[in-house]
Amino acid sequence: MKIALYQGPGHINDPASGFSLLAEKAAEAKAQGAELLILPEMYLSGYNIGPEAAHKFAVTAAGLAPAREAARRHNIALVFGYPEKVGDDVANSAVLIGPNGEILLNYRKTHLFGDLDRAMFKAVGTEFPVAELNGLKIGLLICYDIEFPEPARRLALAGADLILIPTAQMEPYEQVARYVLPARAYENQVYTAYANHSGQEGELSYIGLSSLCGPDGAILALAGCGEEMLYATVDPAHQAAVRKADPLLADRRPALYGPLAG
Amino acid sequence: MKIALYQGPGHINDPASGFSLLAEKAAEAKAQGAELLILPEMYLSGYNIGPEAAHKFAVTAAGLAPAREAARRHNIALVFGYPEKVGDDVANSAVLIGPNGEILLNYRKTHLFGDLDRAMFKAVGTEFPVAELNGLKIGLLICYDIEFPEPARRLALAGADLILIPTAQMEPYEQVARYVLPARAYENQVYTAYANHSGQEGELSYIGLSSLCGPDGAILALAGCGEEMLYATVDPAHQAAVRKADPLLADRRPALYGPLAG
Repeated sequence: MKIALYQGPGHINDPASGFSLLAEKAAEAKAQGAELLILPEMYLSGYNIGPEAAHKFAVTAAGLAPAREAARRHNIALVFGYPEKVGDDVANSAVLIGPNGEILLNYRKTHLFGDLDRAMFKAVGTEFPVAELNGLKIGLLICYDIEFPEPARRLALAGADLILIPTAQMEPYEQVARYVLPARAYENQVYTAYANHSGQEGELSYIGLSSLCGPDGAILALAGCGEEMLYATVDPAHQAAVRKADPLLADRRPALYGPLAG
Repeated sequence: MKIALYQGPGHINDPASGFSLLAEKAAEAKAQGAELLILPEMYLSGYNIGPEAAHKFAVTAAGLAPAREAARRHNIALVFGYPEKVGDDVANSAVLIGPNGEILLNYRKTHLFGDLDRAMFKAVGTEFPVAELNGLKIGLLICYDIEFPEPARRLALAGADLILIPTAQMEPYEQVARYVLPARAYENQVYTAYANHSGQEGELSYIGLSSLCGPDGAILALAGCGEEMLYATVDPAHQAAVRKADPLLADRRPALYGPLAG
């Protein structure tokens, strides 16, 4: 399965142009043969928008109708971040929409980042769901989540083949893009896609460096710091060979890991 | 505290010349101002020596006397791997000897690697001990252990500032040296030292690429593929600043990590 990743500037306070660009990029990715397109954290509204705008633009599943229509029209799966209305709260969420427009997976960020996240969002998420697409098991995480080994490990233990991570990663955290992403791919023997913003948003300078990594930790594609589309192919036979050569998950010793969950 | 790392060829079936080179490198490191020297996995005997030699060269603490004497004579702490006699079994162990020659820490590899390890060693280790040296808390891991996020996490949760990893890392696992080590340093906000063999040992081609990483994931020193000494300085003030800026350990959500220990 060929996958595409869009790195680009945020769409501050403007979900309408977010939906419009989403449809455009979906068409572009599909024309290149991709069956899945992943975009950044809080793609629809922009990330650094403050609590008032986050509340204003927060939507339930119904508010994602234009994205579901774009997926259906271009027959491509879509993953992107958005502010999700959960009762009176706003969650920092990401959604996987299937090529028929159905919502396959919705994830709510479990690890909120500093004052920025905490001012806008409630950590209402406690689940790490996995869904199937084209025979591959897919899990979602968001930005800061991937800096902890535990969330990706939970997805791997739930059988994830592919972990997709919309992000809004700014200076000075380049080590995350350069080292942590391929390490997560290696240690869990999964494909990863890490889709970042580029450019400036308020006082934040996004570092770009979106990446696609393979189950042996190879960096398959790495973006620069500007607007860019990346492509890579998920190869289940390669992944199976990697897992067979080194049974990393089977070699774990969970009986020794008690204090991690304590 | 300045630390030194020795990357070099194994000393197959020859602990006597291992002790001799250990003393020589201890003197060299001390002359450069280092207070701690770390050497590879199974440094004393060589790693790829087979079960018979592993049994033959296995020692208890008493058998480490020449290394304790070298530490005392050169007033420097030493860390290296050796085959440890544990009853009738052999453990793949690493020891931290203090500058007075005292044994501060002994660690038995918890995650055995493939048929190679399993032919020579028993996985008798179940503990992740931490000891103090010059006001820094130190933990040890060995080679394959570091490919799993859980062992390093256990040490970080036990307060480790510095994780020292003797290794015998061969082709084709370059991703571990390049990505996993700085990722472990970053996610746990610890200093890491990863000391590898170089050259050929039987059918194994060691990749070198020993490294010293900082608590922000920076690679402070990276070896090539030959014999080499590396140096870096552990700066507790820098480490405290990194931990204050991003409270990664405090931001963990252990209540969500139950399946990791299940």
